[in-house]
Amino acid sequence: METHVFFLQLLSILLGARLMAELAIRVGVPAVIGELMAGVILGPSLLGWLEPTAVLRLLAEIGIILLLFEVGLDTDVKRLANTGVKSVLVALGGFFVPFLLGFALAFYGFDLPLLVALFIGGTLTATSIGITVRVLTDLHRQHSHEGQVVLGAAVLDDVLGVVLLALLYEFSIGGGVSIVNASKVLAFVGAFFLLAPVMAKLISLLVSRFDAVSELPGLIPTTIVSLVLFFAWLAHAVGAPELLGGFAAGLALSRRFFFPFGLALRSNEQFSERIETQMQPIIQLFTPIFFVMVGLSLNLREIDWSSVFIWSFALSLLLIAVVGKFAGVLLIRERRSLRLIIGTAMVPRGEVGLIFAELGRVSGIFNNEVYAAMVIVIAATTIFSPLAMKWLYERLDDAPPASSGSRY
Amino acid sequence: METHVFFLQLLSILLGARLMAELAIRVGVPAVIGELMAGVILGPSLLGWLEPTAVLRLLAEIGIILLLFEVGLDTDVKRLANTGVKSVLVALGGFFVPFLLGFALAFYGFDLPLLVALFIGGTLTATSIGITVRVLTDLHRQHSHEGQVVLGAAVLDDVLGVVLLALLYEFSIGGGVSIVNASKVLAFVGAFFLLAPVMAKLISLLVSRFDAVSELPGLIPTTIVSLVLFFAWLAHAVGAPELLGGFAAGLALSRRFFFPFGLALRSNEQFSERIETQMQPIIQLFTPIFFVMVGLSLNLREIDWSSVFIWSFALSLLLIAVVGKFAGVLLIRERRSLRLIIGTAMVPRGEVGLIFAELGRVSGIFNNEVYAAMVIVIAATTIFSPLAMKWLYERLDDAPPASSGSRY
Repeated sequence: METHVFFLQLLSILLGARLMAELAIRVGVPAVIGELMAGVILGPSLLGWLEPTAVLRLLAEIGIILLLFEVGLDTDVKRLANTGVKSVLVALGGFFVPFLLGFALAFYGFDLPLLVALFIGGTLTATSIGITVRVLTDLHRQHSHEGQVVLGAAVLDDVLGVVLLALLYEFSIGGGVSIVNASKVLAFVGAFFLLAPVMAKLISLLVSRFDAVSELPGLIPTTIVSLVLFFAWLAHAVGAPELLGGFAAGLALSRRFFFPFGLALRSNEQFSERIETQMQPIIQLFTPIFFVMVGLSLNLREIDWSSVFIWSFALSLLLIAVVGKFAGVLLIRERRSLRLIIGTAMVPRGEVGLIFAELGRVSGIFNNEVYAAMVIVIAATTIFSPLAMKWLYERLDDAPPASSGSRY
Repeated sequence: METHVFFLQLLSILLGARLMAELAIRVGVPAVIGELMAGVILGPSLLGWLEPTAVLRLLAEIGIILLLFEVGLDTDVKRLANTGVKSVLVALGGFFVPFLLGFALAFYGFDLPLLVALFIGGTLTATSIGITVRVLTDLHRQHSHEGQVVLGAAVLDDVLGVVLLALLYEFSIGGGVSIVNASKVLAFVGAFFLLAPVMAKLISLLVSRFDAVSELPGLIPTTIVSLVLFFAWLAHAVGAPELLGGFAAGLALSRRFFFPFGLALRSNEQFSERIETQMQPIIQLFTPIFFVMVGLSLNLREIDWSSVFIWSFALSLLLIAVVGKFAGVLLIRERRSLRLIIGTAMVPRGEVGLIFAELGRVSGIFNNEVYAAMVIVIAATTIFSPLAMKWLYERLDDAPPASSGSRY
């Protein structure tokens, strides 16, 4: 690609995201909806000015990983552990119920082949952690109790989604489904989550030593971004989603991070603060690219809007996609209002669903009609959830106030 | 490219650049030499781990444009105008003398065809503004009198280089050399330099208004990077080098920028300061990618080190490349020590020379031997100049002290 063309693409993404996000706020909608719409407008769905090119995709990936890094940086491990059991229940319920119901609808209801039905179920499983986290932040609820439950559940959910994707992919290319492989991946991911923060912490201590003696400016931006990229790569290497590497690195560098067993590696408060100040502009630069890319990847023009099959199939799946995520919420003890909010927050499928659907299409498992239905479901859940959450927070009198401990 | 592979490439560039730059400082060499060496080591010349891929090239381009933005931000237009005549003389002398001598050597001395000889002369013309500016900054001399002369000369030089490249390219594909076209490009570039800062200033005032009312964080990183990309694109559109668009945008946003005719658009001091603070980490993240890419692009392994032609040709050209840049310095009134420093600062050919050489190779004008000789010349000038400048500053007793007005 020619440089000046790329510059024009990148600046239309950045400015488009900004303009639409500001507009969204003005009309009372979460900013992330504006950024998604910028992608829909600029992309093949409407104007057709931009396509999700390889370069933009890589920049978007950096964006989502940096966003998860920031979420990690901003997370209190202790509080996350406190809500752990609830998160596990929400994740498991919201994973298995949409998978099984989606599969059953496709296989029994619409007579689709076994593999197709399995992939459809899979597409419905994973919550989009990026969208969910952004909505909570846009509404200033990222530090709330329900925010913690959702964050933990979305992380687990993503791990389960990737494991399922790996299994289904193996199955689709002729290998059987192996429980041994699945357990291996889960064990690796578990080990990663225990060890990665410790490793990241040790590296960051090294960097902070170096910071004291280096004469060259710019240590933090280059080394911390490298650290995040390294853990994203490591996450991929053990079979976990890359963005969780960013989350693990963020957790470790958080001011609220404590080692288990009370290990005496105290954080350098001032260094943590400098990391936050200097990483912030970089994160703010990259993350909108991700959300615009999600919008760009939804090609609404490819959908045959007059097809009865597509509509009936999409609407039934949409029902399952929404209701299924509330299944997990029924397993936990919580006020009705918080249950509604947690369930709604888990609904957006965003980029994870798109990865499933794209893989389904590229490998020939999904035909155009099934793919179109999946795109409708993904788009609807992604746009519905932020709107519904804002509405819920405004209506429910017994909702807790916005957390005041937010640093942003 | 797969995401995790890209992450690994990017992090090895960032960490490699950092490690080698720190090492360079420890052994008393400017940091930029370390970053170039990181590219040579990681690239095809030595380890072969990395190649200059399309994505990395685009990120590197962003890096050099942001660096020039920072240089502009840090430039006092008045002082630049004061040294203007000297800069013009240094630029003109250092452009025409290497071009003519290089051409003559190739055409008469080595009996090479006309077009080849013209391209060889062209490759010797343009100073690498990126390397030159970095070396001055590494040595804390970017605000000195000689620093201003060099900066102005390097900017003009780059414009002349691009105009020459356009002319030679046209000539090579069968069109004649047209003075009308050349004048048109020069007129456009002139208009760009008069109007771009005014436009950028107006846009930045708009952004600062917006900044006061926006509820969404991250306005500065996205809009200022967009502004820089836009001016880089605009520079390309009028036929100027893209990085000069970054420079123009930086000039306009500088705290020391004044409109001609005393126009009363005063800068908002506080806003300028926020731009600097927030852009700094982004600039520091991207610029090392550029210098590593220059190192990656030098494939020293392709050179047949035993060829007598390559060595004799390269060494004669190297002599011309160094001596030729001192031609401009003879035209100005300056102390001997400053003349030496200004001449030396203009020597590195870096990325501009590589663009010429690459175009020559791809279009079949340069055969492998000529290309190899050009690579030797470019590498030698790029590495010689920073070392020589450091040496000169240390040895020359009458050299002025490091500027104390630096903000970095």
